[in-house]
Amino acid sequence: MGIKVHGNPFSAATQRVLGTLAEKGLEYEFVIIDLGSGQQKTEAFLKLHPFGQVPVLEDGDLKLFESRAITQYLAHTYADKGTPLIIPHPKKMAIISVWSEVESLKFDPEASKLAYEFVIKPIIGLTTDESVVEQHEGKLAEVLDVYEARLAQSKYLGGDSFTLADLHHTPVINYLMGSKIKALFDARPHVSAWSADILARPAWQKVVALMKH
Amino acid sequence: MGIKVHGNPFSAATQRVLGTLAEKGLEYEFVIIDLGSGQQKTEAFLKLHPFGQVPVLEDGDLKLFESRAITQYLAHTYADKGTPLIIPHPKKMAIISVWSEVESLKFDPEASKLAYEFVIKPIIGLTTDESVVEQHEGKLAEVLDVYEARLAQSKYLGGDSFTLADLHHTPVINYLMGSKIKALFDARPHVSAWSADILARPAWQKVVALMKH
Ligand SMILES: N[C@@H](CCC(=O)N[C@@H](CS)C(=O)NCC(=O)O)C(=O)O
Ligand SMILES: N[C@@H](CCC(=O)N[C@@H](CS)C(=O)NCC(=O)O)C(=O)O
Repeated sequence: MGIKVHGNPFSAATQRVLGTLAEKGLEYEFVIIDLGSGQQKTEAFLKLHPFGQVPVLEDGDLKLFESRAITQYLAHTYADKGTPLIIPHPKKMAIISVWSEVESLKFDPEASKLAYEFVIKPIIGLTTDESVVEQHEGKLAEVLDVYEARLAQSKYLGGDSFTLADLHHTPVINYLMGSKIKALFDARPHVSAWSADILARPAWQKVVALMKH
Repeated sequence: MGIKVHGNPFSAATQRVLGTLAEKGLEYEFVIIDLGSGQQKTEAFLKLHPFGQVPVLEDGDLKLFESRAITQYLAHTYADKGTPLIIPHPKKMAIISVWSEVESLKFDPEASKLAYEFVIKPIIGLTTDESVVEQHEGKLAEVLDVYEARLAQSKYLGGDSFTLADLHHTPVINYLMGSKIKALFDARPHVSAWSADILARPAWQKVVALMKH
């Protein structure tokens, strides 16, 4: 049966899953969902994802949605393949969970809205709203101050090695690097080194290549 | 050394952790943080939680923040004590993760804002904003429609037994039950039965008792 991903190469949530599959060196079938025409809200797709979004992962008879639940599943189930994205030790795993929650609840809400303003809006013909940018830029800067302190003590957010806690950030950081928000990263040396490191990973470069097709 | 929780009995995020400790039957020391006076933003507290929020858990030399990272840690580390809040099987665990993500990213953003309007604002002397209520009420109704379909097929969100995926909802549902938002739950038979079930759990009743001190 194998692994199947339903998603879109430009969706950050899809990229989170594709990046995990690439780190793990797993083969998969990629089913592209046309978000522009609303394919994700069709009756057929809602059977796979009740909220009508991408990504969805199928692994044999298992069907999963929510990108971070999918990456956790892949990291645990294929623990001995490719990059170990988790650490099988309760206290170390707990630290990875803390920073995974921070990505999801502190970083992503700000960073995604900025990516929308700078990357998505120009594509769909809308104008970047500077008042929205200002609001989220300030909040993202506060989050990155916490990251700077953390990364001064620890090479990666979850510990000494690259884990899901870092990987989950890559898609949105990649988008922001093409905007003036890059300055927030550049101004913080540890954040800047960390983001350059995670963006340069060969597995991530495979995901970037998919966007260029 | 034992377990120490820094939190506030009225904080939903704190209650998520206290509910988990009660399900596990674990003893702990509860250090009350005075959110009204801003104790969570003092230099001393920021050493425990870089974003200056509650809860924080200490277990021996381990310090954790983010309520859902803490509950995961407790469920894994004390797996054989009290209620098994996770299922040690990768595919079953993956389903629990999916619905835990749904709680965090779909349910909580709407439900927490409604709890703020109906429960917190009256306490701090502010007036409920009906336009905010209307907006989030509609979105919460859509989330509860997905829950109704899920709970028609599965007794609990994560599967046949009560898990973290259900427990994470309890504090905010408890607050909403005292507001007109209760009608959204009452209108959906499976959601209504499920929420009554999780609110009636003896472990949750112990957390409720802490609020009455
Ligand atoms: N929390 C979800 C977010 C999924 C999400 O927002 N997907 C977007 C693309 S990145 C989508 O499907 N948008 C289309 C829509 O919502 O109709 C996850 O991490 O999987
Ligand atoms: N995502 C965090 C949220 C924590 C949170 O919002 N805590 C609130 C109380 S429920 C708090 O500390 N508020 C005070 C503040 O932010 O200054 C978690 O789940 O632990």
